[in-house]
Amino acid sequence: MIDFSPVLDTLKIELPSWAFGNSGTRFKVFGTPGTPRTIQEKIADAATVHRLTGLAPTVALHIPWDTVDDYAALRGYAADHQVALGTVNSNTFQDDDYKFGSLTHTDKTVRQKAIDHHLRCIEVMDQTGSTDLKIWLADGTNYPGQGDIRGRQDRLADSLATIYQHIGDEQRLVLEYKFFEPATYMTDVPDWGTSYAQVSALGERAMVCLDTGHHAPGTNIEFIVAQLLRLGKLGSFDFNSRFYADDDLIVGAADPFQLFRIVFEVIRGGGLDADSPVALMLDQCHNVEAKIPGQIRSVLNVAEMTARASLVDVDALTAAQEAGDVLGANAIFMDAFYTDVRPALAAYREERGLPADPMAAFAASGYTETIVAQRVGGTQSSWGA
Amino acid sequence: MIDFSPVLDTLKIELPSWAFGNSGTRFKVFGTPGTPRTIQEKIADAATVHRLTGLAPTVALHIPWDTVDDYAALRGYAADHQVALGTVNSNTFQDDDYKFGSLTHTDKTVRQKAIDHHLRCIEVMDQTGSTDLKIWLADGTNYPGQGDIRGRQDRLADSLATIYQHIGDEQRLVLEYKFFEPATYMTDVPDWGTSYAQVSALGERAMVCLDTGHHAPGTNIEFIVAQLLRLGKLGSFDFNSRFYADDDLIVGAADPFQLFRIVFEVIRGGGLDADSPVALMLDQCHNVEAKIPGQIRSVLNVAEMTARASLVDVDALTAAQEAGDVLGANAIFMDAFYTDVRPALAAYREERGLPADPMAAFAASGYTETIVAQRVGGTQSSWGA
Amino acid sequence: MIDFSPVLDTLKIELPSWAFGNSGTRFKVFGTPGTPRTIQEKIADAATVHRLTGLAPTVALHIPWDTVDDYAALRGYAADHQVALGTVNSNTFQDDDYKFGSLTHTDKTVRQKAIDHHLRCIEVMDQTGSTDLKIWLADGTNYPGQGDIRGRQDRLADSLATIYQHIGDEQRLVLEYKFFEPATYMTDVPDWGTSYAQVSALGERAMVCLDTGHHAPGTNIEFIVAQLLRLGKLGSFDFNSRFYADDDLIVGAADPFQLFRIVFEVIRGGGLDADSPVALMLDQCHNVEAKIPGQIRSVLNVAEMTARASLVDVDALTAAQEAGDVLGANAIFMDAFYTDVRPALAAYREERGLPADPMAAFAASGYTETIVAQRVGGTQSSWGA
Amino acid sequence: MIDFSPVLDTLKIELPSWAFGNSGTRFKVFGTPGTPRTIQEKIADAATVHRLTGLAPTVALHIPWDTVDDYAALRGYAADHQVALGTVNSNTFQDDDYKFGSLTHTDKTVRQKAIDHHLRCIEVMDQTGSTDLKIWLADGTNYPGQGDIRGRQDRLADSLATIYQHIGDEQRLVLEYKFFEPATYMTDVPDWGTSYAQVSALGERAMVCLDTGHHAPGTNIEFIVAQLLRLGKLGSFDFNSRFYADDDLIVGAADPFQLFRIVFEVIRGGGLDADSPVALMLDQCHNVEAKIPGQIRSVLNVAEMTARASLVDVDALTAAQEAGDVLGANAIFMDAFYTDVRPALAAYREERGLPADPMAAFAASGYTETIVAQRVGGTQSSWGA
Repeated sequence: MIDFSPVLDTLKIELPSWAFGNSGTRFKVFGTPGTPRTIQEKIADAATVHRLTGLAPTVALHIPWDTVDDYAALRGYAADHQVALGTVNSNTFQDDDYKFGSLTHTDKTVRQKAIDHHLRCIEVMDQTGSTDLKIWLADGTNYPGQGDIRGRQDRLADSLATIYQHIGDEQRLVLEYKFFEPATYMTDVPDWGTSYAQVSALGERAMVCLDTGHHAPGTNIEFIVAQLLRLGKLGSFDFNSRFYADDDLIVGAADPFQLFRIVFEVIRGGGLDADSPVALMLDQCHNVEAKIPGQIRSVLNVAEMTARASLVDVDALTAAQEAGDVLGANAIFMDAFYTDVRPALAAYREERGLPADPMAAFAASGYTETIVAQRVGGTQSSWGA
Repeated sequence: MIDFSPVLDTLKIELPSWAFGNSGTRFKVFGTPGTPRTIQEKIADAATVHRLTGLAPTVALHIPWDTVDDYAALRGYAADHQVALGTVNSNTFQDDDYKFGSLTHTDKTVRQKAIDHHLRCIEVMDQTGSTDLKIWLADGTNYPGQGDIRGRQDRLADSLATIYQHIGDEQRLVLEYKFFEPATYMTDVPDWGTSYAQVSALGERAMVCLDTGHHAPGTNIEFIVAQLLRLGKLGSFDFNSRFYADDDLIVGAADPFQLFRIVFEVIRGGGLDADSPVALMLDQCHNVEAKIPGQIRSVLNVAEMTARASLVDVDALTAAQEAGDVLGANAIFMDAFYTDVRPALAAYREERGLPADPMAAFAASGYTETIVAQRVGGTQSSWGA
Repeated sequence: MIDFSPVLDTLKIELPSWAFGNSGTRFKVFGTPGTPRTIQEKIADAATVHRLTGLAPTVALHIPWDTVDDYAALRGYAADHQVALGTVNSNTFQDDDYKFGSLTHTDKTVRQKAIDHHLRCIEVMDQTGSTDLKIWLADGTNYPGQGDIRGRQDRLADSLATIYQHIGDEQRLVLEYKFFEPATYMTDVPDWGTSYAQVSALGERAMVCLDTGHHAPGTNIEFIVAQLLRLGKLGSFDFNSRFYADDDLIVGAADPFQLFRIVFEVIRGGGLDADSPVALMLDQCHNVEAKIPGQIRSVLNVAEMTARASLVDVDALTAAQEAGDVLGANAIFMDAFYTDVRPALAAYREERGLPADPMAAFAASGYTETIVAQRVGGTQSSWGA
Repeated sequence: MIDFSPVLDTLKIELPSWAFGNSGTRFKVFGTPGTPRTIQEKIADAATVHRLTGLAPTVALHIPWDTVDDYAALRGYAADHQVALGTVNSNTFQDDDYKFGSLTHTDKTVRQKAIDHHLRCIEVMDQTGSTDLKIWLADGTNYPGQGDIRGRQDRLADSLATIYQHIGDEQRLVLEYKFFEPATYMTDVPDWGTSYAQVSALGERAMVCLDTGHHAPGTNIEFIVAQLLRLGKLGSFDFNSRFYADDDLIVGAADPFQLFRIVFEVIRGGGLDADSPVALMLDQCHNVEAKIPGQIRSVLNVAEMTARASLVDVDALTAAQEAGDVLGANAIFMDAFYTDVRPALAAYREERGLPADPMAAFAASGYTETIVAQRVGGTQSSWGA
């Protein structure tokens, strides 16, 4: 049986706190019994995922959804649950002031408010020990003429520069791009090129965040992965999958082979090396499926696909590529993809005292029944849109 | 100046009650002062659009969003405001029971509940004098394997047949299709072919509803218009526009030329003839723009594009087409599109005692100020997602 | 080891004669040594694929590319090579007369010429013993206004009706649809709905052909498969795969999971049953990869995916679906997909005297070297665009 | 009547020599009587477009399609026809050696051959007085695994650096990007970000070329225009339009409003200023429409849309944008788009001794009849795919 420890021993996948809360569409957000009401309950759920998979040691926070009075205490709470606090995600899209933009707004007062929010996020990071400030902006316009594309871009650059000045020596700013939504005509950071141009202007500790669901139809995402790694600017991933728009489905669910190709390029570009700057994170919504097993499934999908991608015989592949042997090269690639790595991964887990089948272990654990019984009353966490 | 009365005198565009309430995205629904709290206030706003444009004599209802105790009274209220109640839209997507489907659900109890809802909608129609029951289903699945595609389709056929039995002789059932959203993997009525196959199995009073925002990227919508008119199954339009997904922007805002081509095919296929079965309706969201002028703008866009499309010299076009004169035919087509019909439409309105510039007239009317002052307290209408 | 004989014993995949000739893009068609110059050489190549896989007993013809004087002799030639002649594909897109349409042309003379071509194809079928006449039309327009969408559709219906009258009792007419290309604005049979409406008007022996590369971006193809099977109108498949447009790549190469879902619906709808009307065929171009192994790879991909799809535990799946267990249902589905069926298929082949690894067997056979040596001079087959 | 001379007096649109030759699809290239056989005849046709529009003073060359022995003589020939030779376009996609890449090829010999081709193109530029070397690469792969994405990118950078060393002080290298085609899986320069990163590494005289047909579905092209102008790296446009893929239709034909938005951003970013580095060029195929009037129509479309875009009341627009008046801002934008500028442009032309209606003037000129009579025999120019 193949030994996957070289690739799996260092694999870490951050979980988003909000994946454990309710989410949905503009048509309906379905609630479910047991949904967390607090960040502490979200951390407890995330810790459960880590306990069963051994692969998810950190939890990302979303401010203000996860705001608490005492972040040091929260850090301790997480540590007590054997996980750490990770990336801090800012939110400048749910305040009436941000209706027409935040870091790009024409009104200096609104821009400053948005900048200040990020400075507070950095303060949170200082207390939680988080290294990454992730900025995803909902800024954009819905109608042609509504905004000045160029002016908005210039203001964005100014705002980011101000924020970046406060990023500590051991901290990073990662700028996420998104093709569309919520804006329907123009998004201020729509593509990797824009994020790359903006973070390049900031400095070394500014990087691009690639969300796998944020591209135009048909976009070759693994190319972007390879390119950003080549340019030294791939800071982090937001993993999920999609059939149409930013569906935020479980990573690998919509197009497993695409995930394989992406992970292959991550490995190819050194993204899983010990000194790699690439942080892996999930960013998903579990609208109709159970949330905790949804996260377990996602972590397993990334691990399995990493295992498969690591199987590619790179020397043979290179030889076939150089020989112009299209079918041969493709066959080497596909052979890795089609190999069933699940038994080896189960064995790998068992060797480490983890359950062979984390999904079954979770179902058998009674955790769901416990939280359904305990989490009664209060307001279930959600995006609060 | 061109006389557009032949095409404009019979043009009627139904307004959706929900366009006057708040709407948004899964990220945020922005409220605005003056937003209606009740269906009566929505009707008052819609009547304002009609008073200024003369083109919007009916208001569509959404059940349960617009549920009242006394529909006869509501009908009278509308009549007092010089408008009538139009299409009744059902809603089987906001109840927990419908999480995994409504008319397609595997559970007979849920299906019956959804059927019963439609029967109640028909009762509403009987009281309001509405002729059209519009069914748009959120039914679908998010993950491969989640549902049995074939079984869902068969159950849909059964459910629709039951509902159709209750459609009165002067009433119609129109079935809307949608490419995706809220479902992210499979939609049970994803395309015109499915809607056509389903309504064809029902009978003559079942027709297809075409929403201009519900197609795959690149779809030639005017082709579908021409085809459905040819097949005698185009029942109604839901007008809006989009750049990416179902953006629900103002009709004609994203791609004016596409609207021109669509309206041209409507005219070509007799869809604006006196005896045409084609009902025109708006179905839009005004997320960041003002709602009432948003509706006025939309009505004017349809009217202006109808005027432009009526300008196409069909005899000359036919001659160029038959001669294989590609550039000549296209030039005849584009000449109509590029003609500025706005002065003629302003004159047309003035002749009928309507404001030459309805947008300016609305701004000058003080209506916004009045409703902002009056509509204080209560809960603003919205989708309540 | 799993016994796949129930599904594989009856599996047959037709090969297109043109896959063995040169093909390419509008930018370049690359030739390769050994490419067939005649239909006989194409048949020899196809027979080689069948000899090594046991799954490709028939070869589709394209008229006029494969025109011969004596079709009875050609039938005998094929039989001598242990294959039979299959579907006859018409071609009404490479004659100057067809620049502006064939079966849809405004000029009755051109329409009649195109009809007559199809009647000659039926005569060919009578001689070859082919049962299917496949019609794919390049008809369409490049610019808005260039053609009358409705009139073209009506003429298409008339032309098809004339052709259908000549279809024998044991023969079928299958009408293929295509989203775009070569037409860039409007395609006369752009979607399954149009093909379905047209063939339904013809009669029982007219069916729809679904080419997996002919849909708008994001289209859920397996839904269409399920729907057409439900409506009893799925006549045949043209298998290939694509990332962007009609790329005509090896089936399963771009999105293996999509192929899995498609085949699952084929099985679900009885499309592989003994009495199924569904014919499976490849329709691919091998622009840069070797052609014969490209076809072998394709046949194997369909077989392997059929094996995987047959592994879905339908009872368990149904139970999970009815329980609203989204993750459970998806897991059952994915488990089949991720199972490595290749060893079992190799064993299956060996039991039947076929090579365990047909790709390796072909490489070792010396066939390529032989045809490169023998096929010198003459004109290599291609589309001749 | 509006005076458009400020924007039109400096407007120049380069014509591609190949637009006058035959082009088509992989299915068929239709020829037409009168099609040029030589670059001289193409120049004569291009000069006709300029004579009638006054807007197309230069002709782009494609090497080797337009190879001649004596470029100085060709330069004189053009001057005699009142036009100049413009951009030189290289071609590294029609040689068997380039089947698996050119500047990105794994084989150093092939890379050097492709580099040498570009050095010869620079020599041509030295003789023709052309300032721009345009590089569009067909390099890419059709199957996952076929090539090493990262390695190809690195080799591309090396090859471009070698070529750039030979670019003269008054010359520029412009690198075009393209989403897909002819490659169907991975394109080596797929997006503006890649082109930007590559040319940024070269130096000041390396710029990005934006072809309006080379983007993923739904891409906001005007955003890219604004961004590249902001970054100082927009070197040139290849104008055309598309509904689906790289359809190469007449610019403005598919989505006139998109062209308006693009030109608005060009003006907004100074792209039409006297000292602007932005070169405007057509890059189109006239597959079914007449070629010379197709180019005239295209030039007029750009001019008309430039006139419309220049009408936007920027001060009023800015005020509306800053006030958050979405509908007001959009209305100002649309008002310019819907203004019929054609009479003013006709007057503008007449004032300059040009025909009011260049299309009609061409039809009346007898030019077509003349070339049909004269250009008999020889081989019509085409891509020769």
